[in-house]
Amino acid sequence: MPTILGQNQYGKAENRVVKITRDGATHHIKDLNVSVSLSGDMDEVHYSGSNANVLPTDTTKNTVYAFAKEHGIESAEQFGIHLARHFVTSQEPIHRARIRIEEYAWERIEASDATSQSSGADEAKHSFVRKGQETRLTQITYDGSSWEVVSGLKDLVVMNSTNSEFWGYVKDKYTTLKEAYDRILATEVSGRWRFNWTDDEQRMPDWEKSYEQVKKHMLQAFAETYSLSLQQTLYQMGSRIIDNRSEIDEVRFSLPNKHHFLVDLEPFGLKNDNEVYYAADRPYGLIEATILRDGCEARIPVDLTGL
Amino acid sequence: MPTILGQNQYGKAENRVVKITRDGATHHIKDLNVSVSLSGDMDEVHYSGSNANVLPTDTTKNTVYAFAKEHGIESAEQFGIHLARHFVTSQEPIHRARIRIEEYAWERIEASDATSQSSGADEAKHSFVRKGQETRLTQITYDGSSWEVVSGLKDLVVMNSTNSEFWGYVKDKYTTLKEAYDRILATEVSGRWRFNWTDDEQRMPDWEKSYEQVKKHMLQAFAETYSLSLQQTLYQMGSRIIDNRSEIDEVRFSLPNKHHFLVDLEPFGLKNDNEVYYAADRPYGLIEATILRDGCEARIPVDLTGL
Amino acid sequence: MPTILGQNQYGKAENRVVKITRDGATHHIKDLNVSVSLSGDMDEVHYSGSNANVLPTDTTKNTVYAFAKEHGIESAEQFGIHLARHFVTSQEPIHRARIRIEEYAWERIEASDATSQSSGADEAKHSFVRKGQETRLTQITYDGSSWEVVSGLKDLVVMNSTNSEFWGYVKDKYTTLKEAYDRILATEVSGRWRFNWTDDEQRMPDWEKSYEQVKKHMLQAFAETYSLSLQQTLYQMGSRIIDNRSEIDEVRFSLPNKHHFLVDLEPFGLKNDNEVYYAADRPYGLIEATILRDGCEARIPVDLTGL
Amino acid sequence: MPTILGQNQYGKAENRVVKITRDGATHHIKDLNVSVSLSGDMDEVHYSGSNANVLPTDTTKNTVYAFAKEHGIESAEQFGIHLARHFVTSQEPIHRARIRIEEYAWERIEASDATSQSSGADEAKHSFVRKGQETRLTQITYDGSSWEVVSGLKDLVVMNSTNSEFWGYVKDKYTTLKEAYDRILATEVSGRWRFNWTDDEQRMPDWEKSYEQVKKHMLQAFAETYSLSLQQTLYQMGSRIIDNRSEIDEVRFSLPNKHHFLVDLEPFGLKNDNEVYYAADRPYGLIEATILRDGCEARIPVDLTGL
Repeated sequence: MPTILGQNQYGKAENRVVKITRDGATHHIKDLNVSVSLSGDMDEVHYSGSNANVLPTDTTKNTVYAFAKEHGIESAEQFGIHLARHFVTSQEPIHRARIRIEEYAWERIEASDATSQSSGADEAKHSFVRKGQETRLTQITYDGSSWEVVSGLKDLVVMNSTNSEFWGYVKDKYTTLKEAYDRILATEVSGRWRFNWTDDEQRMPDWEKSYEQVKKHMLQAFAETYSLSLQQTLYQMGSRIIDNRSEIDEVRFSLPNKHHFLVDLEPFGLKNDNEVYYAADRPYGLIEATILRDGCEARIPVDLTGL
Repeated sequence: MPTILGQNQYGKAENRVVKITRDGATHHIKDLNVSVSLSGDMDEVHYSGSNANVLPTDTTKNTVYAFAKEHGIESAEQFGIHLARHFVTSQEPIHRARIRIEEYAWERIEASDATSQSSGADEAKHSFVRKGQETRLTQITYDGSSWEVVSGLKDLVVMNSTNSEFWGYVKDKYTTLKEAYDRILATEVSGRWRFNWTDDEQRMPDWEKSYEQVKKHMLQAFAETYSLSLQQTLYQMGSRIIDNRSEIDEVRFSLPNKHHFLVDLEPFGLKNDNEVYYAADRPYGLIEATILRDGCEARIPVDLTGL
Repeated sequence: MPTILGQNQYGKAENRVVKITRDGATHHIKDLNVSVSLSGDMDEVHYSGSNANVLPTDTTKNTVYAFAKEHGIESAEQFGIHLARHFVTSQEPIHRARIRIEEYAWERIEASDATSQSSGADEAKHSFVRKGQETRLTQITYDGSSWEVVSGLKDLVVMNSTNSEFWGYVKDKYTTLKEAYDRILATEVSGRWRFNWTDDEQRMPDWEKSYEQVKKHMLQAFAETYSLSLQQTLYQMGSRIIDNRSEIDEVRFSLPNKHHFLVDLEPFGLKNDNEVYYAADRPYGLIEATILRDGCEARIPVDLTGL
Repeated sequence: MPTILGQNQYGKAENRVVKITRDGATHHIKDLNVSVSLSGDMDEVHYSGSNANVLPTDTTKNTVYAFAKEHGIESAEQFGIHLARHFVTSQEPIHRARIRIEEYAWERIEASDATSQSSGADEAKHSFVRKGQETRLTQITYDGSSWEVVSGLKDLVVMNSTNSEFWGYVKDKYTTLKEAYDRILATEVSGRWRFNWTDDEQRMPDWEKSYEQVKKHMLQAFAETYSLSLQQTLYQMGSRIIDNRSEIDEVRFSLPNKHHFLVDLEPFGLKNDNEVYYAADRPYGLIEATILRDGCEARIPVDLTGL
């Protein structure tokens, strides 16, 4: 046989599960998009088409929905851990499970004055509006002995309208860019962070609190860094997380530089004093880097933040 | 000539303009996507290619940026009014201008404790995160004598996790649906509302306040309607706006029924007590209607909410 | 009641139906996305939530699939006619049906030499690759007495790399554009054309042949027009269709000017002799117009081509 | 310093370059989307914001356009090689360049009979329509001594309407799927293949011919494999490429199983004899694997096909 099989994985992707938990008249939502990917003793299904070792992708879908009932969804991370453990421990041919989850956040609709007076509550008990800001992400990997949890987010758009410069760079024969001493710095954050929880014996992080804190520190680092380059801002965002969150050893960001170009208004006899910008689409600078706790090994793949 | 020219319009679409207003160290953002569409005495450019009556689309783009400086951007509506008036009054061959604007909302990044203590402010002065919830819309049309302002929003996803039923419907030979007495009702609102301000002599509405109030009433009507059909909910959303906002005479909604199907867990020996749902993509019910103040004429086109 | 109900419609949108027809070992595909929209005696479902007149959207979905079996899918237009007739004639409260269909084209995979020799066929009998060029469209409307059929396409990207100029336009204080005597003209065609078949008594057009011919004439008109403006090209595209296809009375196009800007290479000591272009995204010129057979009335809505 | 910098890269992404080559009146197009990513001695720009080693992303954009003139675009691969070599050899701090390119194919518009007779040509000389099928991809990586070229494609949708089965799989307590003995097999191919050309001393492959042949073999393997699982089909597609194209040592595919579910028409008294299918969106099976020439090392990252 002149060809051989390399890395392979399979499963059901994008299982959209919504879990409603009822606490009397007050409801709570978890809204997830769960993708299952399994690896193991799968040579034969590729070589001969024998499905003898294959748990159908349809079954992995059913498992997602059944587990939402059996285990509830405390957090995306905890839910992924239940699923990954199940596939690896219940099926001998499956040696590794990777669960990727997107989570969409909801907030309660504010009650009207009339409703609020009659019910005494400021918020609707079972009516929600999707927050629509970032998409929360997690990826759980389990090989039967150790865990890897990489959480993150995408689609979070941020902007500093000042405190950003860009100058002192290399100039070659193709360089025409003028140096900038006060520019807009805007990006759409795609970030991932890896937890140092790897073992059932360790105390598990509080996944919900961790997420909120990471997002907060990341945003504040973005806001508070006087930036000489987007790379510098990126590094500050990552190291602020590492410094403040002991449960995290590694962070990777992919930050497109969402260019806001100052419009030349001189042809119209107008002065543009950092007021009117054109928000460009393509091309865009793309800055990507990993920040590590000293002494730790990098494990987040280079392309993961680009997914 | 066996063919003739019918309705026609042209202009520059999707001019992305960001305006920063500086109030000392505190900055304010307006982030718009402006599309210009002009009509008038334009037969010749179609028949012979003569551009003698054509103001270039590139000029309409320049005008958007120049006006952001000259007039500022108080609101999307006010900005569109400046633009529409300019094109119709400054160019004899242009008889009608339609300005469509999308607006993206931003909020300030919360300050860290350290920064907050040193600055005394809870929020960053020039650092922002995009809200990411709905996209605000407006369309301004001017023909030199009267105005039509239709504002709206899209991409606002809402859900009631109970208080929705669907039964008592027509059953024909193709009907298999079971009646539902407690279901999830979710939709992604696309709405437009028309103002009765049409004349420069009238007092102009407070566009910013009107938008906030319309959104609030619409969300509350969605939350507070015990629903027997999505049509009923739609009608309540529209009439709540008409009832509460005297500046508005007409509302149109396009509401996809974002189906959340209860997953059958019985094959796994589990009972699904309105807990675990599959959020479906396609197909989806699509409910569309116009609600009018009694005595007013409908003017919002049927397809406008589908754009 | 201070508010009243205006135009309203409902149905199941985006029913994805694939029909395989087997002619021995040779299979044929029709791949459609069908959206149903019904109107009629529907006040009560909006006012009180009574569904007594409501055929469920789920039933309209079932009907699409059942009709694919019962009637087959000869063409998107013919399929839409079967559906629209059914809803209006079988349900008394339904007075009007509008069926919108997207169609995706497939072509056969070319056979390998080995297969081709053994089977004597150059093409696979039941293996297909999606063409991926334009999306074909149709909209059928029926009110119980007369028909309106508007067909069309979207996503068809075309380019002339020369034979396009733009000069002699109006110049105002915001005009900076330089005149162009040899530019790229590129657009992504969104077009709709209305048939003059309105009555069951009339002979029905050959929908498949009509589509192929309209697309051919439209492309050839684009290619063969020496263009002084995109409006002129648009008009030629439309009138070529009217002139050549007697079954069509009205055409509407929405043509974004997909700008290809000549890159300034002078800073690098290079001459750009109409060779190297930057393909821009936003903003873009947007040219829209209706072309009519003389004496006919315009009926395609202004916004339809923008959907 | 408690945190350190890991892998990092930067550059300008999505430079849209269109190159027109004029051979008398006959024009040729190359239409690319080029992304540059550079790595090297870049610690300082992250730690302190010093740009002393940073060639601006704007310069990398300029270089793309200048090189389209200076070197022409013979193929996406050859163009990427010129760019990667330039960045690594011209800038001391840059140790590695990765160029990713998307290519969009165009075909000539067929001439009308009139034009064809007058010009003697069946096709327009400078008028094109975008093919719109797959997007061609390549990624060139250079570290100053050796090359890695990974080409591929995405968005190629294929379907076998028979000759696919799925049975004999593992059944656990969450399995409800019925075995299938004649199903539709459809997927949207995302594939990458790595060339064994790594050194300037080796003879370079004919990139254009290689691409056409790989696509042909891949499609034929898809069509001609009687499939017991999508994994088996995937393996046949990969090994057919390895067997027929000696310039390629490794292939990776990510194949979503685009489910076409047979619609249950029994409630309507109809028999569905593999005729009417519902094309589902989410969830979908996702099958991913690498196929290697025996003795070769896998180098295509697991997530690359998911980008």
